[in-house]
Amino acid sequence: MSGSLREQFEIDLKAIDDTLVEMTRLVGSAMNRATTALLDADLVIAESVIAADEQVDALHHDLEERALVLIARMAPVATDLRALIAALRMSADLERMGDLARHVAKLARLRYPRSAVPAELRSDVLHMGQVAEQLVVKTGSIIASRDLKAAEELESEDDEMDQLHRGLFAKLVDPTWTHGVETAVDITLAGRYYERYGDHAVAVARRVVFLVTGDHLAAHGESSSNS
Amino acid sequence: MSGSLREQFEIDLKAIDDTLVEMTRLVGSAMNRATTALLDADLVIAESVIAADEQVDALHHDLEERALVLIARMAPVATDLRALIAALRMSADLERMGDLARHVAKLARLRYPRSAVPAELRSDVLHMGQVAEQLVVKTGSIIASRDLKAAEELESEDDEMDQLHRGLFAKLVDPTWTHGVETAVDITLAGRYYERYGDHAVAVARRVVFLVTGDHLAAHGESSSNS
Repeated sequence: MSGSLREQFEIDLKAIDDTLVEMTRLVGSAMNRATTALLDADLVIAESVIAADEQVDALHHDLEERALVLIARMAPVATDLRALIAALRMSADLERMGDLARHVAKLARLRYPRSAVPAELRSDVLHMGQVAEQLVVKTGSIIASRDLKAAEELESEDDEMDQLHRGLFAKLVDPTWTHGVETAVDITLAGRYYERYGDHAVAVARRVVFLVTGDHLAAHGESSSNS
Repeated sequence: MSGSLREQFEIDLKAIDDTLVEMTRLVGSAMNRATTALLDADLVIAESVIAADEQVDALHHDLEERALVLIARMAPVATDLRALIAALRMSADLERMGDLARHVAKLARLRYPRSAVPAELRSDVLHMGQVAEQLVVKTGSIIASRDLKAAEELESEDDEMDQLHRGLFAKLVDPTWTHGVETAVDITLAGRYYERYGDHAVAVARRVVFLVTGDHLAAHGESSSNS
């Protein structure tokens, strides 16, 4: 690749990273607002989250096209190729995170005008929403700055998400549960959406780690879910 | 690309398709056996499904490496490049289907020695397992033969899965439900695993349709899940 081609290629790669970071912002905001909609039975917010997911999908498809065109035109060397393939996968993870935020918003809409979350579980769900947001903000800065330290912290924050998830389940199946089966089903699904959202955030971070360190095992380790 | 290079490339592409078909067989067998383990509380089968998922993961990683090496070495033209990128995505979908079968098997293991499925829901779960198997068998033949007619049938079979899923939920939240919250939570998760398994099978089929017809919308349509 000639010097000026290389320069243009670096600019294109950077633009793809910028899109990924933008996607973390959008799906972070989506999950944040979906949590509010779920807790406060806010139909307007729920509808706006559901509608806004189109934007994430559009960014995902646009990024796919750009990455494919770059691969086809530039025939990049192994390292650059891996970066582009990783970007395709990160984009798919982020697109799925948008879907999961939309699922939470749909749950809010389904139970409107009441909240799907009983009062005593509000703080658990709020906490899961907060951890989800921390995860995705961190994922964004890992993409932007290749910050491996943040990637480690993110793993332990995802452990916190898994603990919250298990704690939520424990409350559902406790003999003192008084909110009936429908609410238990809703909370089971909501818990699963938050947990999967966290898994995808970790998957994105691991792909960045893999690009930087070549540690394939770290990149492919699965965030365990024992459900 | 020279004639003999082209010939070798076709052989390599075909080998990748063969691996994808092999993966459909493995994840089909895994979900089939996981359903048996779940219904019959069979711990031996559950453990074997959980252990066998490694094989699917290994095929997935091997396929990824081969596709990346092909892209890097052959600098394929747009159509071939799209086929390879699609193969990477199909492999990721199939790997996830293996995870979902493993999740069903883990649910069987968690509730052993009793079955997680109450007697009156056995036929629903069995039916979901059967549809899952039909879907994945059809997905395999769509990959192998580019059979677009089968791809259409698969969409309607996935609709059947979605209906079964909704029917299962309706039974859980019916006032006559007598099996308690823990069982409702288990069935909610199991239902979600089967439904997502079907979604991924459809996603794989749509990628094949996209490769053959270039119909991007069909390839990117999301199998709706209203939960």
